[in-house]
Amino acid sequence: MAKQLQQQIDERRLMPGERLPSVRQLSKSSELSKNTVIKALHTLEAAGVVEARPKTGYFVKAQHLQSMPRKPKDTELKPTAVEVPDLFQEIMMRSAAFDVLPGGPETEPSLQLITLNRHLGRALRHKPQNKAMYYDAPLGLEALRFQIKEHYRTIGLNLATSEFCITSGCQHALFLALLVSCQPGDNVAVESPAFYGVLQLLQQLRLNVIEIPASPSKGISVESLTEATEKWKINACVVTPAYATPTGASMPEEHKKQIINLANQHDITVIEDDIYGDLCFGERPPPLKAFDTEERVILCSSFSKSLSRDLRVGWIVGGRWQNEITRLKLVNQLASNQSIQEGLTSFIAEGNYRRHLYQYRQVLKRQRDQLVLALRSYWPDSTRFSIPDGGLSLWIEMEESVDTKTVYQIALKQEIVLTPGALFSADDRFSNYLRLSFAHPAIGDRLKAIRILGDLFERKKRVIQ
Amino acid sequence: MAKQLQQQIDERRLMPGERLPSVRQLSKSSELSKNTVIKALHTLEAAGVVEARPKTGYFVKAQHLQSMPRKPKDTELKPTAVEVPDLFQEIMMRSAAFDVLPGGPETEPSLQLITLNRHLGRALRHKPQNKAMYYDAPLGLEALRFQIKEHYRTIGLNLATSEFCITSGCQHALFLALLVSCQPGDNVAVESPAFYGVLQLLQQLRLNVIEIPASPSKGISVESLTEATEKWKINACVVTPAYATPTGASMPEEHKKQIINLANQHDITVIEDDIYGDLCFGERPPPLKAFDTEERVILCSSFSKSLSRDLRVGWIVGGRWQNEITRLKLVNQLASNQSIQEGLTSFIAEGNYRRHLYQYRQVLKRQRDQLVLALRSYWPDSTRFSIPDGGLSLWIEMEESVDTKTVYQIALKQEIVLTPGALFSADDRFSNYLRLSFAHPAIGDRLKAIRILGDLFERKKRVIQ
Repeated sequence: MAKQLQQQIDERRLMPGERLPSVRQLSKSSELSKNTVIKALHTLEAAGVVEARPKTGYFVKAQHLQSMPRKPKDTELKPTAVEVPDLFQEIMMRSAAFDVLPGGPETEPSLQLITLNRHLGRALRHKPQNKAMYYDAPLGLEALRFQIKEHYRTIGLNLATSEFCITSGCQHALFLALLVSCQPGDNVAVESPAFYGVLQLLQQLRLNVIEIPASPSKGISVESLTEATEKWKINACVVTPAYATPTGASMPEEHKKQIINLANQHDITVIEDDIYGDLCFGERPPPLKAFDTEERVILCSSFSKSLSRDLRVGWIVGGRWQNEITRLKLVNQLASNQSIQEGLTSFIAEGNYRRHLYQYRQVLKRQRDQLVLALRSYWPDSTRFSIPDGGLSLWIEMEESVDTKTVYQIALKQEIVLTPGALFSADDRFSNYLRLSFAHPAIGDRLKAIRILGDLFERKKRVIQ
Repeated sequence: MAKQLQQQIDERRLMPGERLPSVRQLSKSSELSKNTVIKALHTLEAAGVVEARPKTGYFVKAQHLQSMPRKPKDTELKPTAVEVPDLFQEIMMRSAAFDVLPGGPETEPSLQLITLNRHLGRALRHKPQNKAMYYDAPLGLEALRFQIKEHYRTIGLNLATSEFCITSGCQHALFLALLVSCQPGDNVAVESPAFYGVLQLLQQLRLNVIEIPASPSKGISVESLTEATEKWKINACVVTPAYATPTGASMPEEHKKQIINLANQHDITVIEDDIYGDLCFGERPPPLKAFDTEERVILCSSFSKSLSRDLRVGWIVGGRWQNEITRLKLVNQLASNQSIQEGLTSFIAEGNYRRHLYQYRQVLKRQRDQLVLALRSYWPDSTRFSIPDGGLSLWIEMEESVDTKTVYQIALKQEIVLTPGALFSADDRFSNYLRLSFAHPAIGDRLKAIRILGDLFERKKRVIQ
């Protein structure tokens, strides 16, 4: 019984996240006793293949490890200067490849986006003369910071409104965090694969990177990070504990505590990128910041991935550096837009953000499964990828002979865009990896594009010199 | 006759910018011949006290020099590190003291602001799903850059749309300009008095400042700048040729050419702050950038002062550094808001920005005259100030014994805010100066506030320890 189910799961006839038939149904179809069925399910649960949800039944675990991409081979842990390839800017011009077919079919706006625009429109009409004449407060709109604070409170992070500072998105927050906590020449530890935006910042601020291997399911290796702290002075560590791009990894709570301990011990600033935190398909785990004991975690996030990239509203919780961060923000760009903050505030206060997340998580989960199915159907059998429980993307490992940068160039001729693994490291350790996003549904022309990519990989020996 | 008119002007019975009675009226009231009156007017015109405007008559020249604040005493021209006082952040929390009474009576929104909001609202409703899913292009909205380009074309600066990059305001543009053109430890020449925002940037980027004396009417001294280039390697020079804060000075065209020559000769990056350029009461002089022969002028500006501080839309023309600036902007904060750019574009395209400027310049000129009158009426006779032909503020010199920082602290207790001269220099050369803005009308409670300040200065010997 257990073997039979396992096989169905391996063959993706039962998809990750899908509910198993009920005990009664399984008993009936297999002609086995209910007790035998229950035993089989317990076996699978113990093996981490399925999970029980109280009063709902058994589900295929999303993080089913069989086809996960592997950690890259061990490379020496040492600081290096960052020199990000020009490819980054090129890909940024193509919407950071979060869409395999930029400019592809448009989606209807969600009801919540229409509601959001009504709130923004109303805020624009409120005291326009005053807003035209006065800049926003240095920390940003207090009422918005209150709403964000309240949102974090529901997931186990208790902060004061005054601990938040509004920024122009998460990248801006990461910039301020690194600027305030590091001097040129300092060493910064990052997950490997890393978010390319952070690698770019390290280059701009003349900081050295130490790339710490990260597992596609559990994130940064605490063991490797510990090893690195023993060898080198590490000034800051940038981590994305929740559904990191590109892997979608989610850091276990135990690791969070260990990282805080390590940071306290070695005086490391921990910069937490929480931008994907709200895109969880199950329960939202508390941020790393919730375990901070010495005001040394700087939390960075924004509404760009969870609501709208066009708001340009992010936030930073600066801990012990809060005043200095606010000063840097002022000097750097003075102020944020007040109307947008006001509209966003009333939108959240009326429960719309909560409703939006509830629906959007379901949409993203469906799109993740569509993408998984497309890869299973059209890509080589040797393809390995993560199936994350949240976030926006799959991290895909191809056979070692494949250079995804080359495939990127070939696909581009058909206006198909992927994110080559090269972007996620300061050296070339991910040349046979790539990231695909499920921010858009893998249907219609986008499904076709994924199929074309699959063909390219299948025919790689002929196509790629 | 000439003496009599001169006296009326000196006593401010005839205000700067005011039209003189007609030749016929003057002849009648003085019982002198028309020819004698015309001769007297010619004398005054030659002395630079009045100016003739074709087919309209004679006007009191706005830049009437008698009561101008003096250039500070010569200080040695040498690079120094910048350490801006904490006072800056405190004043920024109070709307940068562009309002003597922050939170004072509100003004009705102008028709143009209501129109602007209609355009912004319409843009928000246009393809909201697409904007939520895709970031803005790295250079910003092309249609908006086209409108800005066209606006500059009308004042003698011919550029291509691709030469502009949209930023989050002028401060953000200045930050990018300094970041791209200087290395830590480099020397940057600025006008003295300087814009405090630039001094803050120099501190943040660890650049040294060389403060070049500037005249309250003609701006930076080319002679002093030349002297400085002979003594020191100057990497960049930040200037505000049009209605600089705090003096309101306007750089003569001849000086612009000399500065370009000097920059070419010594390989200096010229960073032009044009934020007040559109707030001219007479003809808009062409920007310094119009005289650039080697792509070494970086033009920075925004709509914050001329239209709305809440748009957070500025621009940078990066010259030879354009690609690198765009890359830095991406890394720094990724993108700008697309809806606001779209709404602003259609607002400008329909001629609304032009109409707004036409009206707003008249409003500002009236408010300048109100402020001048208030100072003449309620402040000590020894008060000296500039009467600029544009911009937003008066630069005021008090007797040498006055410390405007102390007056700032005293006034604050009555919620009255001024900008002390200390903010406009890295050393303490302007301790008896202050800036007052005419961004708001000097009427009602604001007039009262200015009167209270005047009393404070009158009673300074008793009040100020």
